[in-house]
Amino acid sequence: MPIDPDAAIRITAFDWVPDFARGQVRDLRVRWALEEAGRPYAVRYLSQGAHKAAPHRARQPFGQVPTYEEGDLTLFESGAIVLHIAGTCDALLPPDLAGRARAVEWVFAALNTVEPPIMDHAVATLFEADQPWSRPRLPAIEARIDERLGELAARLGGDDWLDGDFTAGDLLMVAVLRILSDTALLGPYPHLQAYVARGEARPAFRRALADHLAGFTGAPPAGFAEWESELEVEPALQGELR
Amino acid sequence: MPIDPDAAIRITAFDWVPDFARGQVRDLRVRWALEEAGRPYAVRYLSQGAHKAAPHRARQPFGQVPTYEEGDLTLFESGAIVLHIAGTCDALLPPDLAGRARAVEWVFAALNTVEPPIMDHAVATLFEADQPWSRPRLPAIEARIDERLGELAARLGGDDWLDGDFTAGDLLMVAVLRILSDTALLGPYPHLQAYVARGEARPAFRRALADHLAGFTGAPPAGFAEWESELEVEPALQGELR
Repeated sequence: MPIDPDAAIRITAFDWVPDFARGQVRDLRVRWALEEAGRPYAVRYLSQGAHKAAPHRARQPFGQVPTYEEGDLTLFESGAIVLHIAGTCDALLPPDLAGRARAVEWVFAALNTVEPPIMDHAVATLFEADQPWSRPRLPAIEARIDERLGELAARLGGDDWLDGDFTAGDLLMVAVLRILSDTALLGPYPHLQAYVARGEARPAFRRALADHLAGFTGAPPAGFAEWESELEVEPALQGELR
Repeated sequence: MPIDPDAAIRITAFDWVPDFARGQVRDLRVRWALEEAGRPYAVRYLSQGAHKAAPHRARQPFGQVPTYEEGDLTLFESGAIVLHIAGTCDALLPPDLAGRARAVEWVFAALNTVEPPIMDHAVATLFEADQPWSRPRLPAIEARIDERLGELAARLGGDDWLDGDFTAGDLLMVAVLRILSDTALLGPYPHLQAYVARGEARPAFRRALADHLAGFTGAPPAGFAEWESELEVEPALQGELR
């Protein structure tokens, strides 16, 4: 689905982020959902700092990307946006009420149970890598991640997706797990690695990623350390500190 | 709404948790939603350890409480359960599609933007309070919390609720903010303090809290430190370390 400047849907994304965040800022999740749904969209690109200025704060009180605008509706929080898109198409939720509830369950499991220790890892290895407390915390963080991965792998087993056909829950779980792609943490779980690869091989994901990456046409700010932590970001973890 | 052992809905909860977790384990969020919806429910109480055993793992792959069972449907993740309940009544979501999407947006904002630094604070002051890295991290964690609270307060202004009438988004935001009730962190934000008090004053919340607390009839395990971190818990923060 090509990006269409005249589309009824408009999202926000950054025109520049550090290398480690490319392929991870959460507009990618929304783009992927829109591609799965077959919905054209336009992109409002923000330069550094613009996400904290009044016009964007009116869209997003916490000054993050992405946002979603369609007519009178403005939404933020990528999880909520993906669910909203899922509710307007057949591609991301099963038709029955129980199946839909279980897909939503996996959305929350991805964002609230699996992602938090992974974000802790990102904080300790990237955003606060230079802080004296980060390295000592890593073993405990990695143990928490490994426990969650083991539990998820046990539930997934040899299935293709978490609960029948691909759903918004898989979309977000794959988006969360691929944060670990540059680490060794997925190594013990070949079924999870295959699951991530299966998600990333979907044509909708590949289009979304290509467009996400092509959008970084801006220049770095004079000093980006200050706003760096304000992306609604999932940093790719570039190697282990340990 | 009295608890009814024969109700069609059954949730899980612990029969014992440490004092600091009473009033915070996430079955409270589900109970509150059920009370708002006027739905009777039964409770399956788990003793320590039972949440990691096979029968509960079949309900909850990550070994957490709460869960939700109704007929053939079994759900986990309190956010997903609250949204499922919200979808079956008029009490927790507005009738229009845009209003519902914005309420879901606040659900995710509560759980994914506001709660993560608050949980970091709980980890640093409770679960890892004895670790050498915890105290040095606190100022950065508290700064992150304060930034989120300031942004939320700016959006709420003097309104009663986040977006018109009370919704599932308010339910979860109040549930998240009240984790801070025993700290000084809400002090600079009287409108947020009033917002939490407004939520806690709702008859549905008061019934849910009373039943939640009355359920702790079990005995502590021989050694509970190991499983303590496995509650889907929001610890009440009992005073500052600083």
